[in-house]
Amino acid sequence: MSSRIVFRMLGGRSMAEFTKVALDAMGGDNAPVEIVKGAVDAVNKRKDIRVALVGKEEIIKKELQQYTYDKEQIEIVNADEVIETAEPPVNAIRKKKNSSIVVAMGMVKRGEADAFVSAGSSGAVLVGGQVLIGRIKGVERPPLAPLLPTKKGFSLLIDCGANVDARPSHLVQFAKMGSIYMEHVMGIKNPKVAIVNIGAEEEKGNALVKETFPLLKECKDINFTGSIEARNIPYGDADVIVCEAFAGNIILKLFEGVGGVLMEKIKEGLMQDLRTKIGALLIKPALKKTMKGFDASEYGGAPLLGLNGLVVKTHGSSKAKEVCNSIIQCVTFKEQRINEKIKECIQKEEE
Amino acid sequence: MSSRIVFRMLGGRSMAEFTKVALDAMGGDNAPVEIVKGAVDAVNKRKDIRVALVGKEEIIKKELQQYTYDKEQIEIVNADEVIETAEPPVNAIRKKKNSSIVVAMGMVKRGEADAFVSAGSSGAVLVGGQVLIGRIKGVERPPLAPLLPTKKGFSLLIDCGANVDARPSHLVQFAKMGSIYMEHVMGIKNPKVAIVNIGAEEEKGNALVKETFPLLKECKDINFTGSIEARNIPYGDADVIVCEAFAGNIILKLFEGVGGVLMEKIKEGLMQDLRTKIGALLIKPALKKTMKGFDASEYGGAPLLGLNGLVVKTHGSSKAKEVCNSIIQCVTFKEQRINEKIKECIQKEEE
Repeated sequence: MSSRIVFRMLGGRSMAEFTKVALDAMGGDNAPVEIVKGAVDAVNKRKDIRVALVGKEEIIKKELQQYTYDKEQIEIVNADEVIETAEPPVNAIRKKKNSSIVVAMGMVKRGEADAFVSAGSSGAVLVGGQVLIGRIKGVERPPLAPLLPTKKGFSLLIDCGANVDARPSHLVQFAKMGSIYMEHVMGIKNPKVAIVNIGAEEEKGNALVKETFPLLKECKDINFTGSIEARNIPYGDADVIVCEAFAGNIILKLFEGVGGVLMEKIKEGLMQDLRTKIGALLIKPALKKTMKGFDASEYGGAPLLGLNGLVVKTHGSSKAKEVCNSIIQCVTFKEQRINEKIKECIQKEEE
Repeated sequence: MSSRIVFRMLGGRSMAEFTKVALDAMGGDNAPVEIVKGAVDAVNKRKDIRVALVGKEEIIKKELQQYTYDKEQIEIVNADEVIETAEPPVNAIRKKKNSSIVVAMGMVKRGEADAFVSAGSSGAVLVGGQVLIGRIKGVERPPLAPLLPTKKGFSLLIDCGANVDARPSHLVQFAKMGSIYMEHVMGIKNPKVAIVNIGAEEEKGNALVKETFPLLKECKDINFTGSIEARNIPYGDADVIVCEAFAGNIILKLFEGVGGVLMEKIKEGLMQDLRTKIGALLIKPALKKTMKGFDASEYGGAPLLGLNGLVVKTHGSSKAKEVCNSIIQCVTFKEQRINEKIKECIQKEEE
């Protein structure tokens, strides 16, 4: 079914007028309940969104019954199989042809959907993106780029994917793609790009960083500001944080871990006796509001950049809010023609 | 001046009865005030400690005047030069022969002191340790191993030094040395050793981790428990966290950064209005107590392991408490014959 046929079925509006998202209804810890709710929230917020809920039709239909929404905006696409988080991704993608991930990615590949959003197996989403949807010509490696909460707002951490042991040319492309995403999707003018390093000086770093640094310095398409030490990442000193995936994974997960333990420690302190319990009641609403700015789910999922279509990976523990925000994020991505901009920028360098 | 002469000067007690620490009186943001205070606190707590305050004699003498302590326990060793944090370390060590760091390390080298403690330039301490004091025979690379606060207590992060791009054999030695330190200095029986990775499965990781994993699995001297994801480090899931220095530096500094920003965010929330300010007053003492367990300075500095003598690097911002704790840490290190244990363990593998 081509996108042209889809748009006719949806009432004759042209594709340009709406963004179509294929949503993995079976992926993540809270599927299908929170995923379906997120889809409904998104279409109820925005008339320019269409969602295809991909997964077991009967289950999705039953979930959907409780909601009120414009029937034109949500369709169900049946997919009988589910890829589990623990499955080896390459095998799963190859064998489970009728899984929600493979079926939904097929829709993006054929142009029947603009984007794919999933809270399911990270491995399968990363492998599927490359194998089923494919890279933009010239892109060497598609990076996974989550937003990190910072003191000032948020920064894009690029790459946190599954492909470790990157080369300098990969990191330069990450810097360019991340810069385009932050400027045109997140609205940060002339975003500051920095490379993760163990000191501020140019001569510091491991072999990869030392080789990459001068290449980034020469790069005219980005606003490169030099090295960033891990200590300064949470302060928001750069908008685009470039690193290879092993380091990126450490940064992303340690962020969550340290935050989690600190919050537990604080709660422990607050529940100590009557005095602290009263104090806790007084500060709770204000504290909740301040901490909200430090909640990554506010910003939606992490894009897998450089593919022929958009793939967004949300947390495995995503609730409706993150799913909804991730769907809405796809609209800006399409409207701002991010992939065309990436294509131009990457292919220019090859000439 | 040999240690034999020193012990005679100190009243005829044998070296085995006390631990002598050469302390860099000029290093760190709070030198010499907090360093001198830390030395006095240490000798007033423990009769089995001798401290040589190394630095500008006149300044140290003036600082010392305000304190009461056993004059036998503290001596001043003059060193006119100071190595600044920004100086290129190799050059500084070579040229500033009369700096506090070079003079104090000379004392360890010649056996006039058991240990060297400094809050000064990390680079100079790391370079000086290798060049001036030298490695234990068979140790390929001396790792810097700070303690990280965790939910359960603390873990040793090994390596956070300046030598990046490590080889698998280095990481195996780090695991062994870290294990000995945690068991015999920190008192953790049969410490759990894990390697930092991007997933729990054995087949995950970058080239270095994949090569190191089977070597650690085979290693009979340690209690290897497999991979640890960064998210689980703050929860204290392992006692010895093995990684190469680039990753270690990211972990250490991000810990500080995320903690710092979260505490700022919380304070911001608490200072919002009258209601929250009253709440803050009620919870403050309890919160302070709970957060104390998350304060790395409680545990003293980071040892640079595998040298012919002990070198301990404390934070640049160290106050008297951390200096004092670092000095006391040296006693256990000596008493437990850590270097002999490292020597045995490393040299056994070579046979």
